[in-house]
Amino acid sequence: MTKTGSRKIIFGKVAIIGVGLLGASFALAVKKRGLAKVIVGFFRKRKSALAAKRLGMVDVVYFDCLKAAKTADLVVLATPAESIKEIALKVIKVMKPGAVLIDVGSTKKEIVETIEIAASRKRINFIGVHPLAGSEKSGLIFAKADLFVKAICFITPGKKTDKKTLVKLQDFWKRLGAKVCVINPAIHDHIVSLVSHLPHMVSFALIKSISPDYLRFSGSGLKDCTRLASSNPEIWRDICSTNRKEILASIKRFKIQLKTLEGLLKRKDWDALEKFFLKAKLIRDNL
Amino acid sequence: MTKTGSRKIIFGKVAIIGVGLLGASFALAVKKRGLAKVIVGFFRKRKSALAAKRLGMVDVVYFDCLKAAKTADLVVLATPAESIKEIALKVIKVMKPGAVLIDVGSTKKEIVETIEIAASRKRINFIGVHPLAGSEKSGLIFAKADLFVKAICFITPGKKTDKKTLVKLQDFWKRLGAKVCVINPAIHDHIVSLVSHLPHMVSFALIKSISPDYLRFSGSGLKDCTRLASSNPEIWRDICSTNRKEILASIKRFKIQLKTLEGLLKRKDWDALEKFFLKAKLIRDNL
Repeated sequence: MTKTGSRKIIFGKVAIIGVGLLGASFALAVKKRGLAKVIVGFFRKRKSALAAKRLGMVDVVYFDCLKAAKTADLVVLATPAESIKEIALKVIKVMKPGAVLIDVGSTKKEIVETIEIAASRKRINFIGVHPLAGSEKSGLIFAKADLFVKAICFITPGKKTDKKTLVKLQDFWKRLGAKVCVINPAIHDHIVSLVSHLPHMVSFALIKSISPDYLRFSGSGLKDCTRLASSNPEIWRDICSTNRKEILASIKRFKIQLKTLEGLLKRKDWDALEKFFLKAKLIRDNL
Repeated sequence: MTKTGSRKIIFGKVAIIGVGLLGASFALAVKKRGLAKVIVGFFRKRKSALAAKRLGMVDVVYFDCLKAAKTADLVVLATPAESIKEIALKVIKVMKPGAVLIDVGSTKKEIVETIEIAASRKRINFIGVHPLAGSEKSGLIFAKADLFVKAICFITPGKKTDKKTLVKLQDFWKRLGAKVCVINPAIHDHIVSLVSHLPHMVSFALIKSISPDYLRFSGSGLKDCTRLASSNPEIWRDICSTNRKEILASIKRFKIQLKTLEGLLKRKDWDALEKFFLKAKLIRDNL
């Protein structure tokens, strides 16, 4: 009998592959709540490994992802979306049978379909996870032990998902403070293309529309509206390539609304424009 | 000889026509810095007048704008953009010759052209002003005495502007803490259509693009990106009707960027897309 929030070792050894903002925050969150015996990390750069060790994020550092994953009970893939599949197929070959593999990538359908078949063949329990807790900042120095508190965490089981592992992972993420939402991977990708990917695309396009000479006149409105444009370009390239169709569909939806607004301006239909703004306001005020 | 920030009465009697967020903040800012002897306000609603009196924003309340403006040394028009011209033409008829009239509306070309001719005939010194210090919140309860501190304040002289009044107003707004920028009214309207009006249009359209069922999955990204959609629909109707051409041109610029981004996604040109994101990031990081 354990209360939510109480300390309980859920996974003996946790291996984090890719210790950036998400991976490092995950490490700190698990350590703070005592949910693992030992945490090891795979790093590409010596400098990051030293920083993570010094900041007490991980107990052991590795520069070979296979060595890091080998004896782990839980392997967490926290690299950019594009590289997740490739690394997953490698680590599956060396992981212990019965161990759990998750990724924390922002898109799920392609990843789940590719990884779960290979994983089940080796008796590795793979489940896709997506905590909605990123930031426009990247890198482990921005990591926070409470990054997942009150954040939505999507868990996206596939056809081969082991029920017990699913229950265990739900418990685990709830202990990290997240609001867990179990959802089909394709539906997940559709939802995030609207609530996350579309605002990013709009931010990137918006900031590029302003003449550089005028940026010094910008107030907090433009700043807030384009904060997402500071996001990591490499990560967003990968998100776009793994959720291309849904993002294009979301842009289409947005263009319809923008065209309506533009039409009202062209026709000087001020009453209808005010109604358009009011509807938008009512939606936003309830967010 | 007065230092910046020192108390000095610049205008004996100040009349504020329309005591909403901007008007009330202006009143508090002037009072805090001792720049006027007495501040009077024109109100439509008895409830707002009582609140403003109780909160020490104004010394005298009026429900007739002509009575409020009659003996003032400075009249401040802080009503929605659409009504500014109409009220200005009324108050000019009763104001003291030599008194100063300003508006704090978000668009300037139409307003300046319409008002300054009528004002100069009556020896009233009119100058358009636009402090970039609004908020998506409206109403006097959100007023702050330091709303203008470090905010950009556009002052937009026209062909008939009195030089001495221009210098006096610059000094006045600097004392309120603003960064004053003297600029041609048409150029002003072009700049704000990009740095302020366009982000609002994008926010309104963006929040309307998201299926209501999915809003519960939104994170801080969507929230920040659509904060401006909570703005007052009536105010934005007026801004659109008084700066229609520039706003349409800004939407066109934005659509070109969005189309480029969409094209890269369609053609799966991931290298070019990453470059697009990187350029956007570099601009935003410098904001």
